[in-house]
Amino acid sequence: MSEPELKKLFPGKHISLVARGKWEFVTRNTNRPAVGIVAITDDEKVVLVEQARPATNATLIELPAGLAGDVAGAEQEPLVEAAKRELLEETGYTAERWTELVSGYSSPGLTDELIVLFLAEGLKKVNAGGGDGSENIVVHEVPVNAVLAWLAQRGSKADMKLLAGLYVAMQMRSSE
Amino acid sequence: MSEPELKKLFPGKHISLVARGKWEFVTRNTNRPAVGIVAITDDEKVVLVEQARPATNATLIELPAGLAGDVAGAEQEPLVEAAKRELLEETGYTAERWTELVSGYSSPGLTDELIVLFLAEGLKKVNAGGGDGSENIVVHEVPVNAVLAWLAQRGSKADMKLLAGLYVAMQMRSSE
Repeated sequence: MSEPELKKLFPGKHISLVARGKWEFVTRNTNRPAVGIVAITDDEKVVLVEQARPATNATLIELPAGLAGDVAGAEQEPLVEAAKRELLEETGYTAERWTELVSGYSSPGLTDELIVLFLAEGLKKVNAGGGDGSENIVVHEVPVNAVLAWLAQRGSKADMKLLAGLYVAMQMRSSE
Repeated sequence: MSEPELKKLFPGKHISLVARGKWEFVTRNTNRPAVGIVAITDDEKVVLVEQARPATNATLIELPAGLAGDVAGAEQEPLVEAAKRELLEETGYTAERWTELVSGYSSPGLTDELIVLFLAEGLKKVNAGGGDGSENIVVHEVPVNAVLAWLAQRGSKADMKLLAGLYVAMQMRSSE
């Protein structure tokens, strides 16, 4: 495709509105991927986080997730290290086995955000989780085969990266 | 949660950078959801679209998708009508059966964008598709159980809403 120059329309503190040709989109100022973690306990439950999301003006249920390189001094941390850090911080779990599931775009008409999803297994709860100082996270553990029914029962809208991660994890496990 | 007022930081032509409290995010000016279509042929292939995406500076493989209400005079069209319009426009298919799969957020840290996914079955090819005048879309039909392998073979990054849609469609069909 043709590659018109990237034009900065408005630089926010964390994200910026930009355009390539006439196409407007949003980009993170860090220019690093997001990570999400499909963490499955030994008794086949997936670990989910519930937190307030100002963009949606509601509390949402999501995969544990975060940004690579958003800790000062560790801007170039490997993605799996970011995933380990976010899983521990948000849920209090460490994992023995880490497998990369898939890299995908969250909304390619709107943003260049790339999310890399990991499968975490062999989980061990080492603290209560809950997020860093600015977060106020509630941890849920839901039978991995009952996530859709559980969300529907709560009347919760879904998190697309959660459903995408479950799809890839289930496909990978069924082919083993 | 507390609900600080929404502040407009920069109004783009199609999308705007806004903030609620200190949290920056992007919102579409139309304030209507996106729709995506998991269209499955009678011989169990899913219909995918390949198109240039300025935000990612690459050609991507995605679910057929679009915005509700982005046609002048039909700003309040029902979501399923938007889905029918986008499927026909992008792929040349009509469908006998439409089922709503799930509503979910594409990236709730970054945007309030909500995507509503539909399952389309009983497909009939009525024209070549390819998108409206501004789009240049290539249609692919991929065995529904081989999407991940097909993407991997092409070296393509994934579209999260595609994987999410396949997850919900597969769960729905396996419980029938």
